[in-house]
Amino acid sequence: MSESKESIQRTEIGSLGEFGLIQRLTNNFPLQQSTTIKAVGDDAAVLRGSDQAMVVSTDLLVEGVHFDLAYFPLQHLGYKAIACNVSDICAMNAYAEQVTVSIAVSNRFSVEALELLYDGMRHACKVYNVDLVGGDTTSSLRGLVISITAIGRQMEHKISYRASARPGDYLFVTGELGGAYLGLQLLEREKQLFLENPSIQPDLENQRYAVGKFLKPEARKDVVLWLEKAGVVPHAMIDLSDGLSSDLMHICQQSQIGAEITESLIPMSEEAKLLALKFQLDPFVCALNGGEDYELLMAVDPEEARKIQFLPGFHYIGECKPQQSGIQLKTDQGKLHPMKAQGWAHF
Amino acid sequence: MSESKESIQRTEIGSLGEFGLIQRLTNNFPLQQSTTIKAVGDDAAVLRGSDQAMVVSTDLLVEGVHFDLAYFPLQHLGYKAIACNVSDICAMNAYAEQVTVSIAVSNRFSVEALELLYDGMRHACKVYNVDLVGGDTTSSLRGLVISITAIGRQMEHKISYRASARPGDYLFVTGELGGAYLGLQLLEREKQLFLENPSIQPDLENQRYAVGKFLKPEARKDVVLWLEKAGVVPHAMIDLSDGLSSDLMHICQQSQIGAEITESLIPMSEEAKLLALKFQLDPFVCALNGGEDYELLMAVDPEEARKIQFLPGFHYIGECKPQQSGIQLKTDQGKLHPMKAQGWAHF
Repeated sequence: MSESKESIQRTEIGSLGEFGLIQRLTNNFPLQQSTTIKAVGDDAAVLRGSDQAMVVSTDLLVEGVHFDLAYFPLQHLGYKAIACNVSDICAMNAYAEQVTVSIAVSNRFSVEALELLYDGMRHACKVYNVDLVGGDTTSSLRGLVISITAIGRQMEHKISYRASARPGDYLFVTGELGGAYLGLQLLEREKQLFLENPSIQPDLENQRYAVGKFLKPEARKDVVLWLEKAGVVPHAMIDLSDGLSSDLMHICQQSQIGAEITESLIPMSEEAKLLALKFQLDPFVCALNGGEDYELLMAVDPEEARKIQFLPGFHYIGECKPQQSGIQLKTDQGKLHPMKAQGWAHF
Repeated sequence: MSESKESIQRTEIGSLGEFGLIQRLTNNFPLQQSTTIKAVGDDAAVLRGSDQAMVVSTDLLVEGVHFDLAYFPLQHLGYKAIACNVSDICAMNAYAEQVTVSIAVSNRFSVEALELLYDGMRHACKVYNVDLVGGDTTSSLRGLVISITAIGRQMEHKISYRASARPGDYLFVTGELGGAYLGLQLLEREKQLFLENPSIQPDLENQRYAVGKFLKPEARKDVVLWLEKAGVVPHAMIDLSDGLSSDLMHICQQSQIGAEITESLIPMSEEAKLLALKFQLDPFVCALNGGEDYELLMAVDPEEARKIQFLPGFHYIGECKPQQSGIQLKTDQGKLHPMKAQGWAHF
């Protein structure tokens, strides 16, 4: 996908210079938010003040650590980079409105390759209704580094923190889990096969689901809208970037509570289950410990739970407990097992 | 400076894990701003809303491109990284209130080395009264990458853009120019000498001025306060990161004007002049094209100029002209030369 456009033309980054490059990459990002007063092109972006609180999140993505360009098309990478940051804003029950994007690139990359990256970002900005308002473009000695800061807004009393879940709260998770992890496994295995025998062409057509979940995850802005329509503010919320077990632990630790979730209630697609079995993995271990699904995990007042339990994609998976109960997983056999966080670690 | 503390103890980053590392590095940043509702520790930081506009700036610093740890002590690097971003906020005539800091580091760095980096950042946060409210900590395959986003506030009508200077405006620059560039030259030369003969110890004691200008520049928050006291909002303002000629060109291009500045009015310290002559460089070329001074260049309504012309550190250097006049430098002999931007380019 990225190769076809690149093969047509190769413009060296050095031929444009830093300011020319910024202009070329950012010139076609139409502004959509009324709060954006000044976007790219000054010492700083300027955003309109309002009585809503501002929510600010930032991520650093490093080639070889967070992504492998051997199987990650640049357009998808651009899309995912924006989506992941918007997801952090959603996890606060807020609406993303602006992003800044900084990149450091080696001269291995052509201007056309970077345009593909920004094509993906542009698409994500359109889908999530966010404005690109600033950034920095510089060279690196090796590889690609992407730094994104997302800015969102919400009334102060509607913001959901990690630290305010209470014993008795119902735990809901959105969407389906484990797909992104299995997509990554699939791509890693195909890459190994290809490196061993380059004449073998990967057949990913039947695995669109998992590959798509990994390469093009979506931020659950729709969930934030559903919550608003339902008039529910979760006591606590987090997005599943590290994995359900690890992210549930963040909520429990910060809220000083325990939790009990039921294995059979964890939502998983049939495609993901079949793929896990094909790889001889326990599907529920993939759903519990696989990261990067970017679904939302929330703790909701039991009185309010009925307002959201039948909404599309909302799944009840368990309850918050007092801290001394610990964090436990109830298996199909009705047994309780203490849970451990085994999320992704980059170090 | 950085070596002494590091030699005492070396804790591997991997022994703390990502969350342990973030906690250790960010746990001693006392909050100072009433607008900071929630700092490090959730999916995003939360800042209080207000009728003031928000000003957002971001920078990406890459080892080997923007800094050389052979002569850049980590504490100074941390201080400078914050100061440069605060400087961007000052250049909008706004007040920085929060920063987010993300780092990518290879395991070449110990936890103690990163603590030195954050010591410098903590000191800068205290000096500039900004809160560290978020960030990301990850590994890199090689070297250190620092990404900083600074957030400031100002009433919308008091923000100074690059694009609104007018012909006839007086141009002022703060402080003294060229020092940082000469400091860098000095450190680069000492490094070369050291590489050629490691037994030679550098003697930088007599060069504290230039070395200090390069290693520990200050953001001119005091200038923003002076402007407020004087009741002056510059028509346009920019901070001198690329160099006077290059940054003046940014203002002229964006404001669609020309300019004429007088060589002999460009402020330069005696130390910097002597150092330039020692290196057989033209002092004014250093002042015009050397970057990283982080002084402020502003275009002020001539009616208002009298309110600031005698303020400490404010230097009148010329005037804005109509666009067709171009951008010109008047030499000591009274001759006019067209100016070219020859600022620092990282590509």
